[in-house]
Amino acid sequence: MTTHLRHLTTLENLPRATIEHLLDRAIAMRDACAHGTRKLDLLTGRTVLNLFFEPSTRTRTSFELAARRLGADVVNFNIGVSSTTKGETLYDTLHTLEAMHLDAIVVRHKVDGTPDELVRNAMSGVSIVNAGDGHHAHPTQGLLDALTIRQHRPDFENLTVTICGDIRHSRVARSDVHALTALGVKAIRFCGPAGLLPDADEFPQVQCSEDFDAAIAGADVAIMLRLQKERMAATELPDEAAYFQHYGLDPRRLARADRGCLVMHPGPLNRGIEIADEVADGPQSRVLEQVANGVFVRMAVLGELLAR
Amino acid sequence: MTTHLRHLTTLENLPRATIEHLLDRAIAMRDACAHGTRKLDLLTGRTVLNLFFEPSTRTRTSFELAARRLGADVVNFNIGVSSTTKGETLYDTLHTLEAMHLDAIVVRHKVDGTPDELVRNAMSGVSIVNAGDGHHAHPTQGLLDALTIRQHRPDFENLTVTICGDIRHSRVARSDVHALTALGVKAIRFCGPAGLLPDADEFPQVQCSEDFDAAIAGADVAIMLRLQKERMAATELPDEAAYFQHYGLDPRRLARADRGCLVMHPGPLNRGIEIADEVADGPQSRVLEQVANGVFVRMAVLGELLAR
Amino acid sequence: MTTHLRHLTTLENLPRATIEHLLDRAIAMRDACAHGTRKLDLLTGRTVLNLFFEPSTRTRTSFELAARRLGADVVNFNIGVSSTTKGETLYDTLHTLEAMHLDAIVVRHKVDGTPDELVRNAMSGVSIVNAGDGHHAHPTQGLLDALTIRQHRPDFENLTVTICGDIRHSRVARSDVHALTALGVKAIRFCGPAGLLPDADEFPQVQCSEDFDAAIAGADVAIMLRLQKERMAATELPDEAAYFQHYGLDPRRLARADRGCLVMHPGPLNRGIEIADEVADGPQSRVLEQVANGVFVRMAVLGELLAR
Repeated sequence: MTTHLRHLTTLENLPRATIEHLLDRAIAMRDACAHGTRKLDLLTGRTVLNLFFEPSTRTRTSFELAARRLGADVVNFNIGVSSTTKGETLYDTLHTLEAMHLDAIVVRHKVDGTPDELVRNAMSGVSIVNAGDGHHAHPTQGLLDALTIRQHRPDFENLTVTICGDIRHSRVARSDVHALTALGVKAIRFCGPAGLLPDADEFPQVQCSEDFDAAIAGADVAIMLRLQKERMAATELPDEAAYFQHYGLDPRRLARADRGCLVMHPGPLNRGIEIADEVADGPQSRVLEQVANGVFVRMAVLGELLAR
Repeated sequence: MTTHLRHLTTLENLPRATIEHLLDRAIAMRDACAHGTRKLDLLTGRTVLNLFFEPSTRTRTSFELAARRLGADVVNFNIGVSSTTKGETLYDTLHTLEAMHLDAIVVRHKVDGTPDELVRNAMSGVSIVNAGDGHHAHPTQGLLDALTIRQHRPDFENLTVTICGDIRHSRVARSDVHALTALGVKAIRFCGPAGLLPDADEFPQVQCSEDFDAAIAGADVAIMLRLQKERMAATELPDEAAYFQHYGLDPRRLARADRGCLVMHPGPLNRGIEIADEVADGPQSRVLEQVANGVFVRMAVLGELLAR
Repeated sequence: MTTHLRHLTTLENLPRATIEHLLDRAIAMRDACAHGTRKLDLLTGRTVLNLFFEPSTRTRTSFELAARRLGADVVNFNIGVSSTTKGETLYDTLHTLEAMHLDAIVVRHKVDGTPDELVRNAMSGVSIVNAGDGHHAHPTQGLLDALTIRQHRPDFENLTVTICGDIRHSRVARSDVHALTALGVKAIRFCGPAGLLPDADEFPQVQCSEDFDAAIAGADVAIMLRLQKERMAATELPDEAAYFQHYGLDPRRLARADRGCLVMHPGPLNRGIEIADEVADGPQSRVLEQVANGVFVRMAVLGELLAR
């Protein structure tokens, strides 16, 4: 481990050693939970607050379980009924929460960069953890995807990873690229309809393609992204069936990938849109391992940030 | 006790010994909570998730208190803002939650049989507890009603139990019949408007009547069901006042029952519709004992299912 | 300390010694939390239920943190989806919760006197804590304001306190007056537009003024109240800018107060309406100390009420 992390808002520019340390720690968390009682006392007496400006039961629950299994108290701050609806600024909300002596704030917000804004404005020792901001970053997702890959294919330098779907608006894709680049993967390929691919200069190291048959060929990992249905208009595909035909992962396409190609998806799945049932439920699917690793990665992150 | 229970989705076909064991265990829970601190450590380190697809603060709170008093962590999965609204299937939600290593999922759903569907599709060691599914079953309510009766009248073989109201759509009535039949009550009578009585062949052992004066005569227990106001149309009664006149439990009718007749209601009460104030608040009312027993029964069930 | 408190619904008529005892206890809570782990075990095994009929994430979170830091379990009873929407009376809700063996119910309700109604109807040993009822009282806010003042100016007998804004509809102002009067402040001044001042005979000891320049002159403490925007009509001020011009606390007005005048606000702030940014964020602002003290005061109150 290099320097002590106080916040986690993005994986961009994190050193490989830091990412590897967090993945190692996640495995240690998994092992610690495997025997007998599943509750550790690393964070006893600490308080983690979930500040979700976008609804996300799945990610919130994963963070909540992670914090509780470390012995922390968790408070859910339901922003739908909160003071921001009464006109309070984000900064006043932050400072109010800090004054209540929280140890960590897990934040999700639709505006890119909100967690970094909180870091810049924090006045106390609170740790900020990004649970997803706009199109910008979702660092714990990047870590859990990296961990899931590493458990099957620790030889990152040999891996070709294809990420397919709405890359342009995906914080998952961005955090995946940051993690996988730091870990030294051989190649990353983006695939999707032109309107959902990122600007050409955003990721110069990544190959972009509108042809999924080509992009999946020989891939070791396929990460399928969730299609936000309101994005269909940007795709020039007439409907979901057409999207599936062009960009869905079905058995025929999966057969073009490497024989042991890992199939991943951040969830929740749109079956029949991004992915066929046979693939989602097939032997190469790592979707549920991703979910399980999500809890361990979040335990690792909270343990790391809140370590005294 | 016969076999170890892993799930509880219905009381139907549970042996009498199993039901008695759960009631005994509920009493043991009550006694364990009566002295000093009310927190036990039977389920320390275990996680119970409330998965309520229908709102129910009352039942959810009862389960939450039961789990916490056994030392478990409780996570409320607010399905109103969850992935199912994003199109995720129930099975993907189940498998996602299982991947997070929950010990029990307490589920309420408006569709009959959903908890059994979860049991059939569960892939891990998670226990499924039915907190009410459609018109089908509400087993912890059946147990708490049986416990409340047993505390006053353990001589089930002598008891006549009258259940009055919307039997047809009532999971409470069904679970009550299953529990009381297993415990050997002498007679069960259903009473309500024709449109709210069940099909004749569903409960051949039960006497059905539209005449509450007759059905309450000599009863040892009167279980009044909550009227869903949208069911009025099926009753051919013009309004709530007319419903109360025909099927409300008032002092005059209660006087027709056995002198010590227990008055029960699953709550929340519609006063002046199913039950008169004088009866709800009178000395024969067991409504609040039912609530108290609800927590103990749920402690017993969670303790039983999650015992290692 | 004089008599043991069982409920806290108002500060009106509480003896000075009781208020001072609660403030002392809040300081003891703060000190106990300052070293090492922040979790005490005073209320281990006890259950506190938040019963909020009005949304308030801020106050609810403060009570939740207070209870958890004392080791209690906390259940949030989300009344928006509860039985009261199914027609259950407040009394039936109360008795149902009592039957579940709660130790304290923290209640917020828009109707004046609801917490006292609960006290009058409680059947068990449950403690009722008022978290704000209508325009009537918000006793923990009164205590935290008194504590914040005492930390800087324990010489209450020398203090002039100006409370500015919508006094008429403010439970905060009323509880502040009760606390500060008991603690023996020299003078309290109310200031606001005529339509937002209380009736002349409600607080005979308080000076009322529509002229903020006069009311702030020489003040030792300025408590700015939040303007409910729907109250604008009652002010005869055309808009928020005009309100700020007449009743906002800006640096020019603050300069008219005593040199060390404490600036307070219960939050959430309407910046540019009640208070200028420079003042809210300036060296005399005690707003965040109020928030921090809120948790300690609520720990003190819960500890006091639930002491065996």
